[in-house]
Amino acid sequence: MRYAISPIAGLDTRDLQRHWEAPQDTRPKRLIDLNLSVAAAHKLHNAGLYINHSPDILSGAEKEHLARTITNFYVSKGLPAFYVRVHFTEDAPGTAFIGGENHTNYAGITIYHLARTFQSDEARQRFLSGVDKIPNPVFAPKGMDWEYFITESSRDLWRMNGLVPPEAGSDSEKE
Amino acid sequence: MRYAISPIAGLDTRDLQRHWEAPQDTRPKRLIDLNLSVAAAHKLHNAGLYINHSPDILSGAEKEHLARTITNFYVSKGLPAFYVRVHFTEDAPGTAFIGGENHTNYAGITIYHLARTFQSDEARQRFLSGVDKIPNPVFAPKGMDWEYFITESSRDLWRMNGLVPPEAGSDSEKE
Amino acid sequence: MRYAISPIAGLDTRDLQRHWEAPQDTRPKRLIDLNLSVAAAHKLHNAGLYINHSPDILSGAEKEHLARTITNFYVSKGLPAFYVRVHFTEDAPGTAFIGGENHTNYAGITIYHLARTFQSDEARQRFLSGVDKIPNPVFAPKGMDWEYFITESSRDLWRMNGLVPPEAGSDSEKE
Repeated sequence: MRYAISPIAGLDTRDLQRHWEAPQDTRPKRLIDLNLSVAAAHKLHNAGLYINHSPDILSGAEKEHLARTITNFYVSKGLPAFYVRVHFTEDAPGTAFIGGENHTNYAGITIYHLARTFQSDEARQRFLSGVDKIPNPVFAPKGMDWEYFITESSRDLWRMNGLVPPEAGSDSEKE
Repeated sequence: MRYAISPIAGLDTRDLQRHWEAPQDTRPKRLIDLNLSVAAAHKLHNAGLYINHSPDILSGAEKEHLARTITNFYVSKGLPAFYVRVHFTEDAPGTAFIGGENHTNYAGITIYHLARTFQSDEARQRFLSGVDKIPNPVFAPKGMDWEYFITESSRDLWRMNGLVPPEAGSDSEKE
Repeated sequence: MRYAISPIAGLDTRDLQRHWEAPQDTRPKRLIDLNLSVAAAHKLHNAGLYINHSPDILSGAEKEHLARTITNFYVSKGLPAFYVRVHFTEDAPGTAFIGGENHTNYAGITIYHLARTFQSDEARQRFLSGVDKIPNPVFAPKGMDWEYFITESSRDLWRMNGLVPPEAGSDSEKE
């Protein structure tokens, strides 16, 4: 078992082990190792992006590209890749309104961070400028409008596969 | 009328009464009465769970089972059953990515609590361990990955059917 | 260019200008000008409403009516119209549960405010009573149950079209 996990009553640890190991296989380990110290400084533990977009505006390849670029961005900040989730939801026609008018060329992105991410205004600005570079090349040529905001929740109220996720950069993750 | 409601201009109170009474019929009253003191200690007033899951992964019966088990859990913590909402949203194929890869066997759960729930680390751990017991028996045999986090908002910014919801455990609720 | 924007590396400002100008065309400028001082007092910068509702319960015309009424409400509080987003999502049949029971006549509304909105209990009550007047006339005649809560995030973690949105009521907006 690669993770030091906190025991929880009623769980079969073989199942847990299998669950933990599956996502590990997909993460670029070298990048993680390089950036563990950055992650510790940022104290960012999880990023979930929910992207609501107008119908027929993003191809499957563009979604995949955005998901990978977003993941790489967070990995460059020291987050393990499998701590990054990206969900796309296509609005049904006639269900998204900006300024009271149906908008048919739009993406609204809600970003959940666990936990408090930014130690200074400068760090925050640097981070947001990095985020901005991701959707701009995809959305701007389409003439889209888009916006995002980040909402921050406590890392202590998060569980993965019934487990307390290891600290980014902790020994249990490095093994 | 069973609830002491705060009057709001322009509302027909007969309509309100009807709305309040309908959901009351479905709550297991004995459990609530037993747990009112627990609710007061927890100061938890509302739980909304939004479950995003891979396509074709949960049957209707499993959704209903999860919704009931989740509701019973919160009722055991002293919350009236009708203060517990569970929404399932099936991701369209190719729209959910973990670590930059499309994940086809996954559930991401966002839990909204009104309001601040946990008075101590120990209470928090007990609560989360209780939550964990609910999805594990359904998700683990399917080989799924899943995660949840809880985000907490102010009880003061919540309204039901145009009304200020009564305190869990208040006299207006016990009648 | 109508907005004073903060330069971000790698962005074509002509593209940005086009993006900024498009939504401006749809906002009722006079209302904004009248209410700029109210907005400054409220310090509310963005409102996003996500409305999950039962299937086949709201017509397209009703959604449009609600979106416009909601937008007008926020405009009356001093917010530029294009800072107000309303998304409707129809629950698939059998996916929404209240009190552990499938509810087929329901709307759950999550409201995101950027940023802290209310300076006093009285201001909060006034605001919520204003919000309540919007869904009541649409939802009550249908015998629906509905609820909403407001969750508040930092204005500093918000970007539109890759830009720092101007302050509501700032000079760059009034031009």
